[in-house]
Amino acid sequence: MNNKVLTYLGCDAQFNEASTVVFGAPFDSTTSFRPGTRFASTNIRTESWGLETFSPKQERDLADYNIFDAGDLELPLGNTQKSLAIIEEFSEEILVTMKKLVMIGGEHLVTLGAVRAAIKHYPDLHIIHFDAHADLRDTYMDEKLSHATVLRRCWELVGDNRIYQFGIRSGSKDELKWAQDHVKTQMFNLNGIEEVIHDLKEIPIYLTVDLDVLDPSVFPGTGTPEPGGVTFNELHEKLLKMDKLNIIGCDINELSPHYDQTGASTAVAAKILRELLLILQ
Amino acid sequence: MNNKVLTYLGCDAQFNEASTVVFGAPFDSTTSFRPGTRFASTNIRTESWGLETFSPKQERDLADYNIFDAGDLELPLGNTQKSLAIIEEFSEEILVTMKKLVMIGGEHLVTLGAVRAAIKHYPDLHIIHFDAHADLRDTYMDEKLSHATVLRRCWELVGDNRIYQFGIRSGSKDELKWAQDHVKTQMFNLNGIEEVIHDLKEIPIYLTVDLDVLDPSVFPGTGTPEPGGVTFNELHEKLLKMDKLNIIGCDINELSPHYDQTGASTAVAAKILRELLLILQ
Amino acid sequence: MNNKVLTYLGCDAQFNEASTVVFGAPFDSTTSFRPGTRFASTNIRTESWGLETFSPKQERDLADYNIFDAGDLELPLGNTQKSLAIIEEFSEEILVTMKKLVMIGGEHLVTLGAVRAAIKHYPDLHIIHFDAHADLRDTYMDEKLSHATVLRRCWELVGDNRIYQFGIRSGSKDELKWAQDHVKTQMFNLNGIEEVIHDLKEIPIYLTVDLDVLDPSVFPGTGTPEPGGVTFNELHEKLLKMDKLNIIGCDINELSPHYDQTGASTAVAAKILRELLLILQ
Amino acid sequence: MNNKVLTYLGCDAQFNEASTVVFGAPFDSTTSFRPGTRFASTNIRTESWGLETFSPKQERDLADYNIFDAGDLELPLGNTQKSLAIIEEFSEEILVTMKKLVMIGGEHLVTLGAVRAAIKHYPDLHIIHFDAHADLRDTYMDEKLSHATVLRRCWELVGDNRIYQFGIRSGSKDELKWAQDHVKTQMFNLNGIEEVIHDLKEIPIYLTVDLDVLDPSVFPGTGTPEPGGVTFNELHEKLLKMDKLNIIGCDINELSPHYDQTGASTAVAAKILRELLLILQ
Amino acid sequence: MNNKVLTYLGCDAQFNEASTVVFGAPFDSTTSFRPGTRFASTNIRTESWGLETFSPKQERDLADYNIFDAGDLELPLGNTQKSLAIIEEFSEEILVTMKKLVMIGGEHLVTLGAVRAAIKHYPDLHIIHFDAHADLRDTYMDEKLSHATVLRRCWELVGDNRIYQFGIRSGSKDELKWAQDHVKTQMFNLNGIEEVIHDLKEIPIYLTVDLDVLDPSVFPGTGTPEPGGVTFNELHEKLLKMDKLNIIGCDINELSPHYDQTGASTAVAAKILRELLLILQ
Amino acid sequence: MNNKVLTYLGCDAQFNEASTVVFGAPFDSTTSFRPGTRFASTNIRTESWGLETFSPKQERDLADYNIFDAGDLELPLGNTQKSLAIIEEFSEEILVTMKKLVMIGGEHLVTLGAVRAAIKHYPDLHIIHFDAHADLRDTYMDEKLSHATVLRRCWELVGDNRIYQFGIRSGSKDELKWAQDHVKTQMFNLNGIEEVIHDLKEIPIYLTVDLDVLDPSVFPGTGTPEPGGVTFNELHEKLLKMDKLNIIGCDINELSPHYDQTGASTAVAAKILRELLLILQ
Repeated sequence: MNNKVLTYLGCDAQFNEASTVVFGAPFDSTTSFRPGTRFASTNIRTESWGLETFSPKQERDLADYNIFDAGDLELPLGNTQKSLAIIEEFSEEILVTMKKLVMIGGEHLVTLGAVRAAIKHYPDLHIIHFDAHADLRDTYMDEKLSHATVLRRCWELVGDNRIYQFGIRSGSKDELKWAQDHVKTQMFNLNGIEEVIHDLKEIPIYLTVDLDVLDPSVFPGTGTPEPGGVTFNELHEKLLKMDKLNIIGCDINELSPHYDQTGASTAVAAKILRELLLILQ
Repeated sequence: MNNKVLTYLGCDAQFNEASTVVFGAPFDSTTSFRPGTRFASTNIRTESWGLETFSPKQERDLADYNIFDAGDLELPLGNTQKSLAIIEEFSEEILVTMKKLVMIGGEHLVTLGAVRAAIKHYPDLHIIHFDAHADLRDTYMDEKLSHATVLRRCWELVGDNRIYQFGIRSGSKDELKWAQDHVKTQMFNLNGIEEVIHDLKEIPIYLTVDLDVLDPSVFPGTGTPEPGGVTFNELHEKLLKMDKLNIIGCDINELSPHYDQTGASTAVAAKILRELLLILQ
Repeated sequence: MNNKVLTYLGCDAQFNEASTVVFGAPFDSTTSFRPGTRFASTNIRTESWGLETFSPKQERDLADYNIFDAGDLELPLGNTQKSLAIIEEFSEEILVTMKKLVMIGGEHLVTLGAVRAAIKHYPDLHIIHFDAHADLRDTYMDEKLSHATVLRRCWELVGDNRIYQFGIRSGSKDELKWAQDHVKTQMFNLNGIEEVIHDLKEIPIYLTVDLDVLDPSVFPGTGTPEPGGVTFNELHEKLLKMDKLNIIGCDINELSPHYDQTGASTAVAAKILRELLLILQ
Repeated sequence: MNNKVLTYLGCDAQFNEASTVVFGAPFDSTTSFRPGTRFASTNIRTESWGLETFSPKQERDLADYNIFDAGDLELPLGNTQKSLAIIEEFSEEILVTMKKLVMIGGEHLVTLGAVRAAIKHYPDLHIIHFDAHADLRDTYMDEKLSHATVLRRCWELVGDNRIYQFGIRSGSKDELKWAQDHVKTQMFNLNGIEEVIHDLKEIPIYLTVDLDVLDPSVFPGTGTPEPGGVTFNELHEKLLKMDKLNIIGCDINELSPHYDQTGASTAVAAKILRELLLILQ
Repeated sequence: MNNKVLTYLGCDAQFNEASTVVFGAPFDSTTSFRPGTRFASTNIRTESWGLETFSPKQERDLADYNIFDAGDLELPLGNTQKSLAIIEEFSEEILVTMKKLVMIGGEHLVTLGAVRAAIKHYPDLHIIHFDAHADLRDTYMDEKLSHATVLRRCWELVGDNRIYQFGIRSGSKDELKWAQDHVKTQMFNLNGIEEVIHDLKEIPIYLTVDLDVLDPSVFPGTGTPEPGGVTFNELHEKLLKMDKLNIIGCDINELSPHYDQTGASTAVAAKILRELLLILQ
Repeated sequence: MNNKVLTYLGCDAQFNEASTVVFGAPFDSTTSFRPGTRFASTNIRTESWGLETFSPKQERDLADYNIFDAGDLELPLGNTQKSLAIIEEFSEEILVTMKKLVMIGGEHLVTLGAVRAAIKHYPDLHIIHFDAHADLRDTYMDEKLSHATVLRRCWELVGDNRIYQFGIRSGSKDELKWAQDHVKTQMFNLNGIEEVIHDLKEIPIYLTVDLDVLDPSVFPGTGTPEPGGVTFNELHEKLLKMDKLNIIGCDINELSPHYDQTGASTAVAAKILRELLLILQ
């Protein structure tokens, strides 16, 4: 008789045999508005059992692949530096074995930990970024490390014109002006992603999906709901096209499940995660 | 001085004079994920008074028709067989007088009780089925009677190619494969319904609307929210076209009102019900 | 050391220097279904700080304009006549200085107070009205003053064909018939607004936005959710076109924030308010 | 086949045969803080079916008595004067037939309507009042008719020292000082009620129970929660002793059910109502 | 690198070494009022990590004992007979190895499965029962197997005067009369438990705690809240005295966590469970 | 015309004239379980307007004293060191003018900032600490600065036997053992506080009230609800006795208002704050 293991739906492989490793990074200490993303990974795992393992759109089944769910990292809340170091270290353990990395945030700052690891293994790393907010400030409330500065920190690692943003609909005047010179930003919608996919084929990609790119009607369970976002089907359709890319790691972040007690936001996150896991195979 | 009667908005006819009978089937014992659909009928009645009796889209008014609201059946929770028998018996009482039947679930399994009654009176019965889930498994958790098997049980009664499914976006691999040989399934959207309406004119139809065919942004108050569904207007438009069909019975099901405390899901169910009642006239 | 002032985001001008005055009218005594709009203005102010002052769509920034937030009026709940008088009086104080008026309801009846003031200064006043409900009844529950009669009362002030309604999808049969002879009503959607904008250029406009014109998926936090409404982007796009009009006052109303604990409805109201404030500049 | 009638548990007598009449007064237009008491009566009826008809403490059963539930009055929201007049008129219909009156508020102001009727039939009327708040202001926000002035208005009808207050723990300094000269107020707890019961035997009593006399831990679903109240058992025990009094009418008020989504507050109100109904028999 | 296991706090022993086995029975199909107890065991496990393993009252630490958490049984919802058989079979697997059984319901009917197993191994079994409701009906809605009949079914197994009830405050008139002849019932409170503990020393005891014995202020997250119950400390104190008894199995039941979104009810259940686990050592 | 200032009820003095300064410290970055205390101060201010300025128990009125509400500090979330420094600096500004300090947390760690300031001005400082949790760990998740270590850090500043804890009912075995040698801990209840008050007269006291010392039935809106706490009246009564002490600063902390949507927890915090403010005068 064995203990019961709580994993994401269908991710019951062992580490060694796995092609892909999923893990949670329950960190939300810099969240400026409504915290709670630390609960995202546990909720996504629990609610994922309301889904099927089979994706009718992809005609693929999680049951046919080897994916390991490593559970959640133990992060020292309130110590941002150390939390990022733990994420970075764990990401390296995955990437060093040539497995693909799938991280469940946490707030968006967790992306920095994974990108720091990825850039070591893939110096040519490019980033595709879905979000409502540009996250390109240099500092936020005088802090360098914040959910609002995370892509700026990533830009310091990858350099100019290697970050492709989609769906951005909020930012300060200065921030959006800076963006024009340093990153490629598609405002308001997801148009042009096909061209980017065409251009980046072969290049190692880190994909970061801040789920608040979705409209709050679809995804109200987040810290800073920003009306005017895309629908589930719009995001889903674009993600499906990415299976032609060489994605070496990805994350979904900013689900704050307690703020949407209907469970719909968690269901959205869980389904996006299933689709991403299948795209990576 | 009389007691106040709680009916659905405008459904204040007596049984004998009524052309249509509405009733509730507050059953949710086989629900695998989040129960609570037993509260749907009471909530829909209460909230219906926030609507008007007049439908601008149909230019018809509930006040102009005779509809009887019979209240809720008393179902022995935990005894699935007997619950279905009670629904079947009551449905026969309605159909035997040539009245039209409108049932408010409960979970989707309640449809089986009504279809068992309908098939006796209408051997040529066809079923139109809106849903996110195919509900075509042979067994679910070793059980023959379940919300996840209900259309399979109906298929055993009506036979091949007499069930038309729309909006399906979730199922197991085997289930969706089986569907290809036995029912007509429109995946992901409601396309093609006009052709079906054209082909089925005159034929007696049972219409079953699992409201989770709607996107969770529209209808989060349900047991198994499945992102990627249709909008209210998409569903509404298709239902309006069905007034050319010979619908002898219909149901709406899977509203679990406690999961959406905004009341929006209940408002959606209540408005769909008004539109269905007017379509049947 | 000074007290902290809670204003709407970026509205920190003094009255004298301001071109525009924002104030709350926390009145909901005639609400027939679900009250609570009295909390709207406070919630909108608090949540507005999750937004940026900069509007990427308009490329304007609240920080560049002088707007005064006057806080909330103190209204004697249960005394409808006196509450309207207080709103009227305060509106006059604003309009008399040629400043623009922006009112945060409250239920829709608050509009009557502002329109009574506006018609004195602008005898040629026209009204543009976004709503799910026509609000044109002569009486409601035998009362002349009600959220369901407010536009009828306004019509008595401005006269025939000076009220333009958009998005209406609910009303009694008689009410909608009356509308055909006295106001201009666009049913179900926002089509035709461009023509109206073209025709009304130069004419003083009062704009009243009942936020339930939005679909309940976008805006569930309201007293009488009516499915089938417009999306955020549809409303947003039309509002942006109105910067060509001579809007002398406007209001948003019918946010009942406690009914949507995700905060998404409040975020929608707060963002619409930012966009309106910028359009008025 | 008959319609289903929604009454309070076990109150299925006809008017003529009834010794007691229950009705709802869903009015909350003067509520200053959090409205919603208009939903109390419907919620209490629905939730009452989770209780038994038998009271073990009283060893009495609702099934053994004739009680008529008249449903809810239709009150013109926003018109306080007319709403009170309707309550008064209906109360007279009950009292004129020597039946006992049991009203479900609504906010506390509804008591005034019933007391106006009662004083006509029982000039010697005394009032027993349970509450957290003294409700003795002469005006509130310049209004004479308010939930915060209701007992002052009752005092104008019954005169000095005929109002007995228990459990009061909130009031303005002036209000509580005024109370010392005109009513009998037991601060903070329910002590001394036995003496009052002893003294008032035979005298006609109107009993008004503002349920916020209970601690917010017991009864959070109310507009103005005031910590430091009594427990359920403390209130229950005192009410049971009142079956020796000649109570000719009573009410419970200030349940705002939407604020306590656990349903516990409604369960408390429903059980208090059962006990009151049995005490009156 | 291993999967993460979700157990109750500190219950990380293997089956073979364990003295006690905890498991969940997520069954709620006969619940008549508000379902949702199926989520109790998962929620209790997750929330238990907010507690310490050390009990200051008992001065014992879960870390010092070997307890195995077997996870949840897979129960076919809607099939009451089979669900009970699965519980019975699993309970036997535990009891046959002389380990102690701790079951997390689910609704109260799950107790019958465990008692059926226990009576085979311990023919002299006595039952101690904490509850608000007597649960002694012979049938409920014509059903023999129901949460409202469960102790009656247990009585058929153990016989007269072997069931000791405490805290009962609700039942039908007939049910409570029947109780007087067949079981020992302490109405309204927990008095007399010390005598029972004294008398039953050495005798094998099954302890079943329906958590609604607690007042709804303490434990609102349950299907049928019944005001007038005991406090946490009153229940806690009595349970601590039971460490002198020979308890061979116990359960806690009727937590319906979704109804109390504060998490307080789940925290109460989790702490009671910790204390019970330590008492059994 | 002036802006409206949102202060705590009745705290409308200017800084210079004030005897007492209230401020918020909206910090929750180290919270290990459920964050959200950053919203406490804003919620307490808003909800305080449902209270009276007059305290019947103290027979004092806030309107009679000069208290300044300084609003909330701007704290860089995620940077624990800097946040504490800002609190410390602001606390000094208050204490240097011999005013009394009242801080609204935030999580419990904020206390450290205020105590660091207080010890400079009052080297003989003693601390009275109400809490469910001992908060005496040396490190928590390897961190020195945490809500679970805050009193240990304070002990390093004030030394042995200068911290008096009351109501503690949770801690690790080691932590509670350490406590016996270094602080004075009253387990489970508030007994003995009168003796402490007697002994500490004249000595400068910092009072820190973690509101989770209250039972979760009274105060569910907190990060780590621990059943078995004291009632509101028990805490209230003890606090009233403290007006004989020389309290130079105090705080209330750990209200996480979003977790209790009834508002009862916020009402409790707001009333405790009123009573503390009056005790300090």
